[in-house]
Formats: sequence, C-alpha cells, structure tokens
Amino acid sequence: MDNGRRKAITTLGGGLAVVGLLGTLSLRDAVAATGRRPPLKLDAKGKVIHQPLPYVPLDPDQVAERAYHNYYRGDCMYGMFGSFIEALAEKVGGVYNTYPTTVTRYGAGGVMGWGTLCGAANGAAMAIYLVSKHPAPLIDEIFNYYQQTPLPNFRPRDAKYQIVPSVAGSTLCHVSVSEWCKKSGDKSFSPQRAERCAHLVASVTRKTVELLNAQAAGTFKAAFPIPADVQRCRSCHGQGGMLENTRGKMACLACHEDKAKNHP
Amino acid sequence: MDNGRRKAITTLGGGLAVVGLLGTLSLRDAVAATGRRPPLKLDAKGKVIHQPLPYVPLDPDQVAERAYHNYYRGDCMYGMFGSFIEALAEKVGGVYNTYPTTVTRYGAGGVMGWGTLCGAANGAAMAIYLVSKHPAPLIDEIFNYYQQTPLPNFRPRDAKYQIVPSVAGSTLCHVSVSEWCKKSGDKSFSPQRAERCAHLVASVTRKTVELLNAQAAGTFKAAFPIPADVQRCRSCHGQGGMLENTRGKMACLACHEDKAKNHP
Repeated sequence: MDNGRRKAITTLGGGLAVVGLLGTLSLRDAVAATGRRPPLKLDAKGKVIHQPLPYVPLDPDQVAERAYHNYYRGDCMYGMFGSFIEALAEKVGGVYNTYPTTVTRYGAGGVMGWGTLCGAANGAAMAIYLVSKHPAPLIDEIFNYYQQTPLPNFRPRDAKYQIVPSVAGSTLCHVSVSEWCKKSGDKSFSPQRAERCAHLVASVTRKTVELLNAQAAGTFKAAFPIPADVQRCRSCHGQGGMLENTRGKMACLACHEDKAKNHP
Repeated sequence: MDNGRRKAITTLGGGLAVVGLLGTLSLRDAVAATGRRPPLKLDAKGKVIHQPLPYVPLDPDQVAERAYHNYYRGDCMYGMFGSFIEALAEKVGGVYNTYPTTVTRYGAGGVMGWGTLCGAANGAAMAIYLVSKHPAPLIDEIFNYYQQTPLPNFRPRDAKYQIVPSVAGSTLCHVSVSEWCKKSGDKSFSPQRAERCAHLVASVTRKTVELLNAQAAGTFKAAFPIPADVQRCRSCHGQGGMLENTRGKMACLACHEDKAKNHP
C-alpha cells in the first residue's frame, strides 16, 4: 500500500475502516453488525431516564389519510404507528428513516385478534411515548377521548362506505367492536367493520397528532379527564384507597355494571 | 489528490463517501441521517409481508433473570421486551445491537397505569411477532398460558420476597393484579405487588423463550388451547357465528359472569 492510500484510509477513521472490512454489506447492515446500543441512562432510583426522539408538528389530516390506507396494509396498530413514523421520516428524517414499524402488526385486533387493547390506542400510546417529553397526560387524554367520543369522526377521501360512529366506553377492541356492531347492525367480520376500524385508526391518529402538536406549542390542556364514576371507584380501590386492591383507569362500569347500584 | 488516494476512496464506495462528508457525526448517526426505510413488501392483497428478524435459541432462565432486574429499571413491558433484545444482541448481534427497547416503557401497568393489556403479555406478543415466522400460534399460546396458569412460577436468584402465585383468568393488568391482591392479601401499590410483577415478567419471559425455542426446533405443540367455554361463546358471537357481533379470544366469563347461567 502506498503512502497516499494509507493516509487516506487513516483519515476516514476507525468506523469507516470497519465498514470497509465488512466488504459487501450495505452501510446499514454494517452498522447493525458493528454498532452497540448506547448504555442505558438510569436515574438515582435506577429507573431508565426517558429520552424522547425529536418531534416537529405534523399535519393531523395528512397523517390521518395515510393511516387509513396503512390500516389496509397492516391493520390497526401498524396503521397508526407506521403512518406516524413515515410522516416524521419525511419531515425530520434521521432516526425515523430506519425506525422499525412493521413489528406493530402484532397489535392487530387487540393483539392478534385477542380483542384486548385496541391497536389504534396501543399504537397511539407507543407513538406518544416515543416523542413526548411528558407522555403520561397525553396518553391519558387519548385513552379517555377514545372511550368517551363517538368514533370514527374522520372520513378519509377514499372512504368505501358511510360509517356510523359509536361510543366505545372502553379502550378494549372487544368492547369497541361490540358497541359498534350494536349501533350499526353490521357484523364483526364484515367489510363494513374493517372500514370502520380503518376510519377509527385515522381518527385516533389525527387526534394523537393534534395532542402532540398542542403539547409542543405549550397549549395542551386536558379536555377528557378520568370520569367522576371511575374516580369514585379509585378512591377506595386504587392507590392510597381504603382497599387498594386493584389498579387501572378504564371505565369500571363497562365490566362491573352490577356495581352501578347498591354498592357500599 | 494523487491517483493512489483517489483509487482508495473510490474503492471504499459511495456509502463511505457520504459518511466522510458528514464529518463529525458518529457512524450510527450518519446512517440515521442518510438511510432510507426499505420499500414495504406487499402481497397480492396489498398486505405487508411478514419478515421476521433472525432468531437463535436463548437460555430461558438466563433471559428470565435479566427480565427480573429490567422490570425494576423500566417496568413490565420493557422488562420483557428489553431483556429479550439484549439477549439476542449478545448472541446474534447485528440489528439487535441497535434495536429500540426503551420505548416499550409505555406499556407499564397495562399502558401507563391504565390496567389494559398486561405489559409482560404485550411485550411477549411484540417479541414473538418480531422473530417468529408463524407468530399467531405462539401468541395464542402465551396469552392462554398467562390466563390459565398460577403465576409467577419463576423465582429469581435475587428475589426480595416470597411471592404467592395466582391465576389471572385474563390477560388484562387490572384483572391480573386484582386476582393476585385477593390471593395474597397484599395491596396493589405495595412493594410486594411490584415484586410479584417482576417475578411475573420473568415467568412470562421464560415461557416466551421456551415457546420460541420449541418452534425453532420444530417441536412446538399448543398445550393451552382456547377454553371450551370461550369457544362456545365464539360459536355464536364470533366469526361465522349466527350473531357475529364481537371479536376476541379473552376469557368471556371474567367480565360476563352473569352469562354463565340461564344464557340461551
């Protein structure tokens, strides 16, 4: 090797030399093969310190339109989360260009059809946590919004059907779908129900972006607090309560309807 | 520039030149700033084609021990998912060295204390989907296992308390914690309950790794099918049923206990 070549390679630095050694790997693969996760930053109590990724305000309607189409590509959680990351990749670039999204397909139908947490809500919570410095109030807001609001309330440009909105009264897919079937008269595995979930994903995505934009602008104010009946239950059963025998913020009476009357 | 230097730099290829231009950015940042998400691969119906990451068998007990400690660093979903990725980073390297984990802190306490899907179950589903070629049967198995098995059933070496196991009868954090409080007599925000959740995360992590190892070895066989009573409900209310007015695989009677008797 002549002096000129040696000097050039040395100048490019160690990281590049490693990539050179890996020969035919793409630059991205090379990093994956040689990079190391940075050490976790822990606080004084040994908890991981929250380090959100950069956020810039997005257009809520544009991301919602994208979410509608992505629902049909990868179902509910992916429809929300994948669209959010794609929009940030276009506007911010950087880490969002390669941030994994397709793994969120696991959340479909309340996780692989189990009907637990609605995938739109699951994706919204993950998206908020990823970019917000103070994620808890926004996750509380989007979950309470989801429970209390007639949804869907966003009609995509390419909508296939007219969709009647319904109030889920829960963040669970099972309950949300049941309430909508009751209201619409449509079946739970019909194309109309799929379209309803696509509109729902778009609606939740739009609201999530609106909340993040408001927080970024310093104008966020919670409009969907935990309802009074849930607060009442929590005052005995939740943290610091006389019983302190459960946890959660879901609408209690959705499952415990028998406790609405004659409860001590 | 002399011929030797020009030739050396040309040989290193376009990707390296880009990194060179970015000057002081780390190699990882450079990729983040210049990389692009590869185009989605869609099947004939327009659905994202599932492309799991590479998996090699892990030691279930070792990952469980790690999950116990990571619970205290980042709560339940992170305890499961973060430990799984760390173990794969050590054994496989590559993409796992930089795969994001701390975002899964959003799942704590059934998503930010909401008591929806248990974070250990949420993390397990995401982990399975990430690496399994056929994730659905494994997610069904770990969820039914979670519902039906007295948990926790893994005692970490550094355990702080003796923990009584309980059957959750649900994949929801709210129900799982309530049942354990009933069984143990401990409060839902006590250090004992936190320790129980740490053991639970370790137990679910161990089982998830066992399932993935079995599937990789071609020996996986479902041992926790959907219970007969849930199948009975689904035969009318689920897909193709007479009513087809809901969806889900959760234990029905956990919420609909009034339907156990005198139901048509």
